[in-house]
Amino acid sequence: MTPPTFEPRDPAFETRVRDGFARQGAMRSFGARLVLVEPGRVHIQQGWSEGLTQQDGFLHGGVVSAVMDTARGFAALTLMAPGAGVLTVEFKVNFVAPARTAGLRARGQVLKSGRTLTLVEGQAHEEAEDGSWRLLATMSATMMAVAPRA
Amino acid sequence: MTPPTFEPRDPAFETRVRDGFARQGAMRSFGARLVLVEPGRVHIQQGWSEGLTQQDGFLHGGVVSAVMDTARGFAALTLMAPGAGVLTVEFKVNFVAPARTAGLRARGQVLKSGRTLTLVEGQAHEEAEDGSWRLLATMSATMMAVAPRA
Amino acid sequence: MTPPTFEPRDPAFETRVRDGFARQGAMRSFGARLVLVEPGRVHIQQGWSEGLTQQDGFLHGGVVSAVMDTARGFAALTLMAPGAGVLTVEFKVNFVAPARTAGLRARGQVLKSGRTLTLVEGQAHEEAEDGSWRLLATMSATMMAVAPRA
Amino acid sequence: MTPPTFEPRDPAFETRVRDGFARQGAMRSFGARLVLVEPGRVHIQQGWSEGLTQQDGFLHGGVVSAVMDTARGFAALTLMAPGAGVLTVEFKVNFVAPARTAGLRARGQVLKSGRTLTLVEGQAHEEAEDGSWRLLATMSATMMAVAPRA
Repeated sequence: MTPPTFEPRDPAFETRVRDGFARQGAMRSFGARLVLVEPGRVHIQQGWSEGLTQQDGFLHGGVVSAVMDTARGFAALTLMAPGAGVLTVEFKVNFVAPARTAGLRARGQVLKSGRTLTLVEGQAHEEAEDGSWRLLATMSATMMAVAPRA
Repeated sequence: MTPPTFEPRDPAFETRVRDGFARQGAMRSFGARLVLVEPGRVHIQQGWSEGLTQQDGFLHGGVVSAVMDTARGFAALTLMAPGAGVLTVEFKVNFVAPARTAGLRARGQVLKSGRTLTLVEGQAHEEAEDGSWRLLATMSATMMAVAPRA
Repeated sequence: MTPPTFEPRDPAFETRVRDGFARQGAMRSFGARLVLVEPGRVHIQQGWSEGLTQQDGFLHGGVVSAVMDTARGFAALTLMAPGAGVLTVEFKVNFVAPARTAGLRARGQVLKSGRTLTLVEGQAHEEAEDGSWRLLATMSATMMAVAPRA
Repeated sequence: MTPPTFEPRDPAFETRVRDGFARQGAMRSFGARLVLVEPGRVHIQQGWSEGLTQQDGFLHGGVVSAVMDTARGFAALTLMAPGAGVLTVEFKVNFVAPARTAGLRARGQVLKSGRTLTLVEGQAHEEAEDGSWRLLATMSATMMAVAPRA
């Protein structure tokens, strides 16, 4: 089952995503970077840093999920009408392997974009030394559209 | 159904939790504080700061869940044998309301502590101006015990 | 944190729940029974039967979760306006122990009842021979209110 | 990211899955059929019947998830060593659309098969009149291997 393709309702969706990302204090202090913004799909690159670790020096699982959360949230936002926002209703993450190195890539992909609710999936991988991607975690989430603020 | 009570397998469980918490770069850079450590139960207090926000200035949902994740992880750790560690297998968070103010309290509570797997629940509340607690989010998580490292 | 109390918007909420339950072919063929209907809270009793088992003769996990799903769905329905319905957006279940005997009790409890979304938690227990309740599974779920049909 | 491929540890994996499925009273009484059994992947077909409905005559969400649960469980079982069993630790389901017709197909796919834990994803689709598949629900689940019984 290939991922669906979507028509953005806001032609300026990319600008909106990049502006919103730039305003996220958390992503800025994490040092995360947007690397792909397409209708229904956003990828974020996150490096390792001492201030983001759990007690064994790996990236904190909560940080990994915060970056995935952000990728998924903006993936949903690419499909929203101009001015509309998006809230996370719930998400679940399954961890498969700890993040050992620099090079975490979080991918968010919309599966279904409804009038009120949007279902998004995400994955986090790290790049191995041979260039292959190792699965770290998967996510599923429900986002809710919120009306433009006056 | 009241929460179960537990006998810790490691009499030094509190020291172990406080040491592990102090080694978490993420909790240190967030400015989180341990406020309760009991067998099967850990509470963490997290204040608001500019570097932890999403684009509307609220605490980033990923930060809220990272703090809840930490409370739940250490709640599970209080019941582990000396030297054993704990990995997060999965967690799910349901968001009920955005975190508007300082004063987020994350509570982790073990529901079932098995030989391999531990089921933990968590909640995040913020203190309203009248001193009542407003529910922000709930969580459930599976943790896995890992053998002591040699 | 004690569960919240709720004011039903439909004074006939109990009749509505009992009618809806009676119309569920699945609950009828499972032999499930409603044992408590209060605002924000529904309990269902489910017995063991050969036609509901997995390969080891225990109640099928999917059946356990279907009964919990039903308890949660009707717990949400108790708080809906007259004529409004409720759809399950998502649920997660954590299994703690297999259901060995007759006597599964599924409890659904609303945590937050919003205009569009409702957060519900559930637990399944079985009664041990000494009359105590053994935890089998926990659940959390998001329900969405749907407008009355014309 | 294409699904991974797996080497089964038990050459008789297909027989084991078909035998286990045949012993599930719940799948038998639902009228579910195994339509694909491969290493790491199992598909199940489920028809509509009056005894499996919720109050509006659609297939009960709990039944949909029970069939998905079964597909995922057996997908995990295809990769287990001879004699080993598999328990569901947790699963989450996101519902996208109600199941309106006959023709529900539940697909289970292993993402990561570890020594103790297995991560499985699943989807349910129904076949539209034009032969296309409409997404009904997605799932993620953690399964735990259990040692062979003596």
